[in-house]
Amino acid sequence: MQNEQTRGLLITLSGPSGSGKGTIVKSLLSKRADTVLSVSATTRAPREGEIDGVHYHFIDRETFLRMIEDNAFLEYAEYNGNFYGTPKAPVEAELLAGHNVLLEIEVQGAEKVMDSGAEMVSIFITIPSMQELERRLRGRDTETEETILSRLSIAERELKRAFRYDYVVLNDDVDAAVERIETIIQAENMRYSRMSKTVMEVLEVC
Amino acid sequence: MQNEQTRGLLITLSGPSGSGKGTIVKSLLSKRADTVLSVSATTRAPREGEIDGVHYHFIDRETFLRMIEDNAFLEYAEYNGNFYGTPKAPVEAELLAGHNVLLEIEVQGAEKVMDSGAEMVSIFITIPSMQELERRLRGRDTETEETILSRLSIAERELKRAFRYDYVVLNDDVDAAVERIETIIQAENMRYSRMSKTVMEVLEVC
Repeated sequence: MQNEQTRGLLITLSGPSGSGKGTIVKSLLSKRADTVLSVSATTRAPREGEIDGVHYHFIDRETFLRMIEDNAFLEYAEYNGNFYGTPKAPVEAELLAGHNVLLEIEVQGAEKVMDSGAEMVSIFITIPSMQELERRLRGRDTETEETILSRLSIAERELKRAFRYDYVVLNDDVDAAVERIETIIQAENMRYSRMSKTVMEVLEVC
Repeated sequence: MQNEQTRGLLITLSGPSGSGKGTIVKSLLSKRADTVLSVSATTRAPREGEIDGVHYHFIDRETFLRMIEDNAFLEYAEYNGNFYGTPKAPVEAELLAGHNVLLEIEVQGAEKVMDSGAEMVSIFITIPSMQELERRLRGRDTETEETILSRLSIAERELKRAFRYDYVVLNDDVDAAVERIETIIQAENMRYSRMSKTVMEVLEVC
C-alpha cells in the first residue's frame, strides 16, 4: 500500500524528430531531482558526442532480438531501419523508488507503451509550424538532405497521431515548454489516485 | 467546430462544509477574468449578507419543484431540508462564450453532475484535519452546536466520496489552494481535446 502511494509517474514524451524533445528532457532533468530518464536501447550507430549508457544503450541487433524474445522491453520499434526499445526492469525499479520516469521515445514506440496498458501520462510535443521544424532539422548539420525530407514527411504523419496522447505541449520556447510539462506533473500529482492517502489520513485521526 | 475549440471548462468544486470552497472561489474569480461562477438556486433562507442573484437565487419551494419538472437543472439535491440546484441554461451559455464555469456545490449535487455525464473537471477540496474543520466551523459564529456536530458527521461521510473526483486539492492555505486549482486549469487546457486545433493548424500550412 505504501509503495502504491509513493510510486513515481511514468511520463511518455514523444513528438516529431526536431520537436525539441531532447532539449526539453535535459532541462527538465536538471530542474527536478525526483525525475529520471529511461535510457533506451538501440541498434543504430552513435551520433557524435553520444555516450553509451547515457544517451542510449548501443547494442547489436542479435542482443536486441534476444531481449525481444525474453519480453524484456516495455516497447520496441523499428524506425528508419534501426531498433529502439525501452527495457522494462529499470523503469519499474525507479517508479517503485518514487521517481518519475521520463520515456523520450519515437511516436511508434509511444503508441506501443499506450497499447501495453501501462499506467502513465502521455505528452505529445508539437511545433509552431512545419517551416520551423525544417529550420531546426537543417540547423542540426548532422542530417543529409534525404534524411531531412524523410523526417519532414514522417513528422506530418506523426502530428496526425497526437490524438492518442493525454496532453499536447507546444514547444515554441524551451523554457515555456518545460514549465508546461511541470504544470502537468503537478496537476497529475493531485489526481485522486495520488491524493487518496492524504484524504484517508484526515479520516483516520477521527 | 470553432465553438468546440473555444468552449470553456466546466469545473465542479466540492468538499465538506467548512473546507473553504467559498473563499477559494472568491479568490479564483478575482484572479481570472475568463472564469465565472454558476449561481445556484436554493429554497433555504438567506444568511446575513447574502444577496439574491449573487450568492444564490433564493426561490420558493413551489418554483423549485416546477423547474425540476421542466428538467431545467443540471443537478439538484435536498440538503438539511432545503433544495439546492444548478440551472442548466446559463451554464451552457457561459461555456459557449468561452468562459470557465465554476460550480461550487455540495457533495450530493456534485455526484449528480458527474452522473449526468456532462463533460467537466471535478475537484474535491479537502482539509488538513477534522480538528481544523471543527475550528473553522466554530469560527463562523453562525452555526448552532447541533449544526456543527451534524456538519462534522456529514464531512466524514463526504471525505469518503472523494474517490469520485478527478482531482483532490488540499486547502491548508487559501492562496496555495487557489494556485493548485489554477495549475489544474492550465493542465486541463493542454489536454489533446483542447489542443487539437493547434496541431491541425501546423498541418494545414503544409
